[in-house]
Amino acid sequence: MVLVNENYLKLKAGYLFPEISKRVKTYTQSNVNKDIIKLGIGDVTEPLPKACRDAMSNALNEMGTNEGFRGYGPEQGYNWLREKISENDFLSRGCQISPDEIFVSDGSKCDSSNILDILGNGNSIAVTDPVYPVYVDSNVMTGRTGEPLRNGTYQGLTYLSINEKNNFLPEIPQNKVDILYLCFPNNPTGATITKEELKKWVDYALKNKSLILFDAAYEAFIQDKNLPHSIYEIEGAKDCAIEFRSFSKNAGFTGVRCAFTVIPKNLVGLDSKNEQVNLWSLWNRRQSTKFNGVSYIVQRGAEAVYSSEGKKEVKGLIDFYMENAKIMKNKLQKAGFIVYGGDNAPYIWIKVPDQKTSWDFFDYLLEKAGIVGTPGSGFGLSGEGYFRLSAFNSRSKVINAMERIINI
Amino acid sequence: MVLVNENYLKLKAGYLFPEISKRVKTYTQSNVNKDIIKLGIGDVTEPLPKACRDAMSNALNEMGTNEGFRGYGPEQGYNWLREKISENDFLSRGCQISPDEIFVSDGSKCDSSNILDILGNGNSIAVTDPVYPVYVDSNVMTGRTGEPLRNGTYQGLTYLSINEKNNFLPEIPQNKVDILYLCFPNNPTGATITKEELKKWVDYALKNKSLILFDAAYEAFIQDKNLPHSIYEIEGAKDCAIEFRSFSKNAGFTGVRCAFTVIPKNLVGLDSKNEQVNLWSLWNRRQSTKFNGVSYIVQRGAEAVYSSEGKKEVKGLIDFYMENAKIMKNKLQKAGFIVYGGDNAPYIWIKVPDQKTSWDFFDYLLEKAGIVGTPGSGFGLSGEGYFRLSAFNSRSKVINAMERIINI
Repeated sequence: MVLVNENYLKLKAGYLFPEISKRVKTYTQSNVNKDIIKLGIGDVTEPLPKACRDAMSNALNEMGTNEGFRGYGPEQGYNWLREKISENDFLSRGCQISPDEIFVSDGSKCDSSNILDILGNGNSIAVTDPVYPVYVDSNVMTGRTGEPLRNGTYQGLTYLSINEKNNFLPEIPQNKVDILYLCFPNNPTGATITKEELKKWVDYALKNKSLILFDAAYEAFIQDKNLPHSIYEIEGAKDCAIEFRSFSKNAGFTGVRCAFTVIPKNLVGLDSKNEQVNLWSLWNRRQSTKFNGVSYIVQRGAEAVYSSEGKKEVKGLIDFYMENAKIMKNKLQKAGFIVYGGDNAPYIWIKVPDQKTSWDFFDYLLEKAGIVGTPGSGFGLSGEGYFRLSAFNSRSKVINAMERIINI
Repeated sequence: MVLVNENYLKLKAGYLFPEISKRVKTYTQSNVNKDIIKLGIGDVTEPLPKACRDAMSNALNEMGTNEGFRGYGPEQGYNWLREKISENDFLSRGCQISPDEIFVSDGSKCDSSNILDILGNGNSIAVTDPVYPVYVDSNVMTGRTGEPLRNGTYQGLTYLSINEKNNFLPEIPQNKVDILYLCFPNNPTGATITKEELKKWVDYALKNKSLILFDAAYEAFIQDKNLPHSIYEIEGAKDCAIEFRSFSKNAGFTGVRCAFTVIPKNLVGLDSKNEQVNLWSLWNRRQSTKFNGVSYIVQRGAEAVYSSEGKKEVKGLIDFYMENAKIMKNKLQKAGFIVYGGDNAPYIWIKVPDQKTSWDFFDYLLEKAGIVGTPGSGFGLSGEGYFRLSAFNSRSKVINAMERIINI
């Protein structure tokens, strides 16, 4: 008799975004003529950069010839792409990350959940609250948590609240934690972390031999020149951190699929005999066995992100979305809302007014203004009373959405 | 202190293909001028069908417009692709597989290893021997086996030998096994299974409430009209089998990356309280949480495989590789080798002559003829004494390789 992985049964109903889709569907079915503006899922809307399309088009042509055809590529990604990443995203910022420490993948969602494959089940784990749900759910699915509690949290996880009081910066845990998930610029709050603050986390991790899983998917949105784009800008991080990066949000690759994960070569974990085991080797083995690399065509597209034309276009996209964020923040503040984020991240974190719950506010905005956002409580207990709006949309829709909110 | 997943430490040195690459590299470094012909990894060599390239090119253009741009797609794949698959690969053969039972992914290697995510750790598992190494390694990595034995097998796995005596058809296990991996047309032996024989496995699985993981990545190479392309051609299979399919080998997508997995909606496993749990729901949850769908551009390419032009081109590719296989088989037989496979599969399974080991024969062919194949022992204990040649190469290289072998 085949047995299932029972840990899945602990999962709360539906991943956040499917639940939103369901409510929107129900709404549209009874409001056929109403035009909805989606500021919910963090999905980009602007066309793919021409530099990327041209590179992919060339790759497609190559694939049509005997000489240019490419079959299986390296599971870790093509070297020409890894070199560009190393040079542009790390060396240029003084981070000594070599091409072979970069693993190209089809998405950060995959990587940030698959990373648990190489880590033991006995680790204690901390996540921020609110948090990107994938971190929590992937831990639940692999049996790294206990049962769900009534309040929506899971036994066995350490939750580090990020809220107005701590300026959306988690406090260093009192207890020893083996694995720490950090995401800056933060999804969902749009908060950022300074080098000085991030250094405290690196120091904590080094002291406790913890591993930081640092999600920097939104680094391209940083406007403040003093903020770190990579955790490796912090001394010592190469000994305690894995970093997740993506082409989804900078170059608009959410539908194209390309990301990468950095695992420094000297990073180690321990086995039960207290012997050091190299994490790079484990991940390399994992990827070689369970993954077959990213589409050659897509990797050529990602490479073009680093061309001078590509960089210009990516900057154009970031500027565009950040201008959206600015407009949203201004209008919402003028309308009397208390809002956070939006300065170095494409997310606006609204304090829900009138003691409403996040889902109440979701339904309210949908009903009254035809606007879809994301309820903060969907990201965790401390997200209750907040609401996330994303700056990913066309200018006209963003302006229209703000007018609708003001006119409710 | 972060702990690693110690199961990885049980893995034998290197996955088979990296080991081959290493030996080839060593050889080429000391034989710079020698021209090597690779018939090792099962990687296609012919250009990507024009129908697929055109469709992808159109998709790329769409991505360059505001109206046509696509961000995140459904994690399960776009419906238009799932409908084409359902219609062409299943309904047309009398298999009632609906679009929503089809999960589009970036590769069968991923799917066939990720599937363990939703299955319990307490299941007993059987694989054939020889076998595609990913099935075994993914079980080792997730702690579903014991320690490795000296002979290269792992404690706790049931190995079903496929060899000359049983005509490369595994015998139904005497004991009860919960999960059975079957791959037909078989990698690496090129063997096939009839509907009658496959029915015995389905009956066994239904009787024992086992789950069959059926890998049909090579179904397109079937020439014999009586052989099943899908396990769902067998009555009852929808109650006991998951099927893996791929665009890698039929349409030459090894470098493009697209595959799919079929999980019938009524398929169930059990939890520890002996209650039925729907496997479709678990996989759907897994994919929604840990995967972000396949590139839109790539899915449009896969869709074109089912256009009339695409079908013609795919048939052309299959015919081409199968003609290669025919030439190889004839020549090798004339040269006195005992060979199997190659009639309904792109793999020739050679009996290694002169009591040589598989790796000896690997080195021998590399040294004497500059040909790279795959040692049978790399696929398991019963693969020792055999050697796999793949029919994936240009006609001239295949002919050249055969001449070299004959002239050793």
